Amino acid sequence: MSIYLDHNATSSLHPEVLEAMLPFLNNPVGNASSLHSAGRMARSVIETARAQVAALVNSSPDSVIFTSSGSEANNLLIKGYTDPSNPQPLISSLIEHPSVLEPLIQQQSAYSVIHLAPNSHGEIDLKAARLVLKNNQPQLISTLLANNETGVIQPVQALMAMVDSPTCLKHTDATQAIGKLKVDMRKLGVDAISMSAHKFRGPQGVGALVVKRKLKQALISGGVQEKYRRAGTENVAMIVGMGKAAQIAMLEIEHKQHHLILLRDLLESKLASIPGAVIFGARAKRLPNTTYFSIPYYHGETLLMELDRAGFALASGSACHSEVTKASHVLTAMGIEDSLALNAVRVSFGSTNTLQDVESLVAKLRELVNKLPAVIRQAAV
Amino acid sequence: MSIYLDHNATSSLHPEVLEAMLPFLNNPVGNASSLHSAGRMARSVIETARAQVAALVNSSPDSVIFTSSGSEANNLLIKGYTDPSNPQPLISSLIEHPSVLEPLIQQQSAYSVIHLAPNSHGEIDLKAARLVLKNNQPQLISTLLANNETGVIQPVQALMAMVDSPTCLKHTDATQAIGKLKVDMRKLGVDAISMSAHKFRGPQGVGALVVKRKLKQALISGGVQEKYRRAGTENVAMIVGMGKAAQIAMLEIEHKQHHLILLRDLLESKLASIPGAVIFGARAKRLPNTTYFSIPYYHGETLLMELDRAGFALASGSACHSEVTKASHVLTAMGIEDSLALNAVRVSFGSTNTLQDVESLVAKLRELVNKLPAVIRQAAV
Repeated sequence: MSIYLDHNATSSLHPEVLEAMLPFLNNPVGNASSLHSAGRMARSVIETARAQVAALVNSSPDSVIFTSSGSEANNLLIKGYTDPSNPQPLISSLIEHPSVLEPLIQQQSAYSVIHLAPNSHGEIDLKAARLVLKNNQPQLISTLLANNETGVIQPVQALMAMVDSPTCLKHTDATQAIGKLKVDMRKLGVDAISMSAHKFRGPQGVGALVVKRKLKQALISGGVQEKYRRAGTENVAMIVGMGKAAQIAMLEIEHKQHHLILLRDLLESKLASIPGAVIFGARAKRLPNTTYFSIPYYHGETLLMELDRAGFALASGSACHSEVTKASHVLTAMGIEDSLALNAVRVSFGSTNTLQDVESLVAKLRELVNKLPAVIRQAAV
Repeated sequence: MSIYLDHNATSSLHPEVLEAMLPFLNNPVGNASSLHSAGRMARSVIETARAQVAALVNSSPDSVIFTSSGSEANNLLIKGYTDPSNPQPLISSLIEHPSVLEPLIQQQSAYSVIHLAPNSHGEIDLKAARLVLKNNQPQLISTLLANNETGVIQPVQALMAMVDSPTCLKHTDATQAIGKLKVDMRKLGVDAISMSAHKFRGPQGVGALVVKRKLKQALISGGVQEKYRRAGTENVAMIVGMGKAAQIAMLEIEHKQHHLILLRDLLESKLASIPGAVIFGARAKRLPNTTYFSIPYYHGETLLMELDRAGFALASGSACHSEVTKASHVLTAMGIEDSLALNAVRVSFGSTNTLQDVESLVAKLRELVNKLPAVIRQAAV
C-alpha cells in the first residue's frame, strides 16, 4: 500500500499532460530557435503554451518567461528586476520560500531589505505592514500567495493596495496557490507572479515568471530565447506539458477544490479527536488541500518515517529543504515554540486522494498515539 | 520527405533514453528532497544519473551539478565561480558560445576580460595565447572544446597546459563536443566542463556543470538541491534521461564517429565539385559531424529557406541566435568577410542520417546553383 499525501512537494503528472508531451518526446523535435520548419513547429507549440499559462493568471502571453522552476522564477525576479543603484528598499516577509529569502540575503549588501512578520495564524500582519509602507517607498514588494507549509492564504490584494509608489514592482510567489486557487494577477494587483508546473500536475523542471516590467539583468544570459530574458534551448515537451496543465487547472479548479476541501475537513475533524494534536494556521484562510499539524511526543521526522514505513508519504517541515533538521522558519515567525514546531508534519492532498486515504491515515495516527505510554498520553490532554 | 541535418542545434531523443524516462513520467514520482520513500527513490535515481554523467567525462559524481541547459552551466560557471574582488583577469576567446560571451560582458565592469582570437582556420591561436598567458595570471580561463558553428576542435589541452597559476579555474564548454568526441577532463587538464543533454540524444531542458571548485555565489539560490549549488525541485525524469544518454554516448562513440565521418566526408567531397563552394575551417581538426559552408550568391538564410521548402532542415549562422541576422561572430573572428560569412549554412549530421540523405542534399544544392543565371555561375568559379 502506498498513499501519497505530499502534493505540495510535487504533484503527479496528469495523464492528459503526459499525452500532450509524448509527441515531442517520441518524435524528433526542432530547436525552437531554428529557422527551419522543425524549429518553427517547436516555436509554435511553445507560443501556444505561453498563451495557456498567461490565461491561467489573467495576464498576456508576452509577459510569460518560461524558467526551469518556481525557484528560478523567484531568483530571476529578485536578482533580475531590482536596481542596486536605487536606494528604495525591497519589502518581503519572514514566511517566504527560501528561493525568495536567499536571493534577498545575497542582495542585502546592495539593498535595504524589510521583512514583514506574520501573526500567530500565519498571515502577514496588515497593520504592521501599513506602518512599514507608510514609512517606506519600496522598489519591490514580494510576498507569497499561499504558504507552502501552513497553506495559509496571504492578504496579497490588500497588501498590494497599500503600496503608494507607482514604480514599485509588486510580485507574488504563487507557486503553491496555482492549481488550488483561482489566481488573477489583475484582481490581486500584482505586476509579477512566479509558478511551477509540477505543483499543478505539470512536469517537473519547468516554471514561469509572468512579469510586465523590463528586465534589468538576466540570470541566464547569452541567447535570444524568451526575448533575451532567459537563455538556453527551450525544453519543448515540458513547456507543452506546462501549457496543458494550465489549461486543465483552469477547467478543473472548482471540482478539484470541492474534492480537496472534503478530504481536508474530514482529516481535521478526525485530528480534533486526537489528544494534544495541533493544527497550525487553523484559524486562517488556507489552501483547500493542506493540513500542517503536530501530534505530541512525535518529532516530525520520526512521525514521517513511522508513517512512511506504513505506506504514507507526507512531509515534515518544508519538503524543499528537508535535509536540514531545524524548526521551520515559518512556524518560528508565527511565534511557535521550537518544541512544538519540531513536531510539525504536513499533509497535502491531491486530486487522486480519496476519503479512504484519510481514514487509513487517521487510523495509523491513532495507533501511533496509542503506542505511547499511558502517562505521556494523559499529560498531552 | 523531411531530412533533419541540424543535430548541433538539437539531436533527437534516443529511444532507449525515452524508455528510461517514461517510468518517471507515467507514475507518481516524489520530490527528490522529500524524506519519504517516494522522495528517496527519486533521489536515488538522480544519484545514478550523476554517476553516469561523471563517468562520461572521467570525473567524480560530487562534481556534477545538474542545470537546465548548457547555457545555464556556462552562466553558473562565470557568474558563480569567479571573484570580483580578485584583480586577476578572466581569459576566454572570441569564438565562444553567447552563453559564455554574454556573462563575461555582464561581469566586465568588475573584471578585466581578455578574449583570445582564432586563426583563419577557426582554432584559437596558441602563439598569441602563450604571450597573453605569459603576461597575465588569470583567475579563470574558459574556452570551448569544439565550436558549435564550424565544428573546429580547439587546442584545449595545450592551452590549459600553458596556465601557470595553480589557483586558475580552467573551464571548457564541451556542449558541442560531448557525444561526438571522447571527452576526458583529466586528459584535457580542466577543472570544469559544461554540457547539455539534448546535444547528445538526451532530453531538452537538462544540462550539467561538472566542477571541482567551491561555489562562490549560486545563480539560483534558496534550496538544498545539488548541495546548495543550484536550487529548484529536480526534474527527475529528465535527469534520468541525461544519465542514460551519457551511458549510451560512451558505449556508442566509436561506431557513431565512424558513421558521422563517412557522411561528412561524402558531403565535403561532393561540395568540392560545386563551383565557388567554401567550407569554413576545412583545414582544422573538426567534429566528425559538422560542415559549415557557403554557396555563392545564396545568402545563408535564403539557402536555408530554399532547402527547408525541399524538406531539409539545417542552420544558417548559429541556430541559438538565428533570430538575429548578422554575420556570425565566429566567422568574423576568423577574418572572414561579411559578404562570404552571410552565406554560411551548417550541416550537422546525427546517427539517424544516411548516405542517401547526403546524396539528396547535394542534388538539391546543385539544382539551386544551376538555377542561377549562367553569368553568375561562371563568375563564381
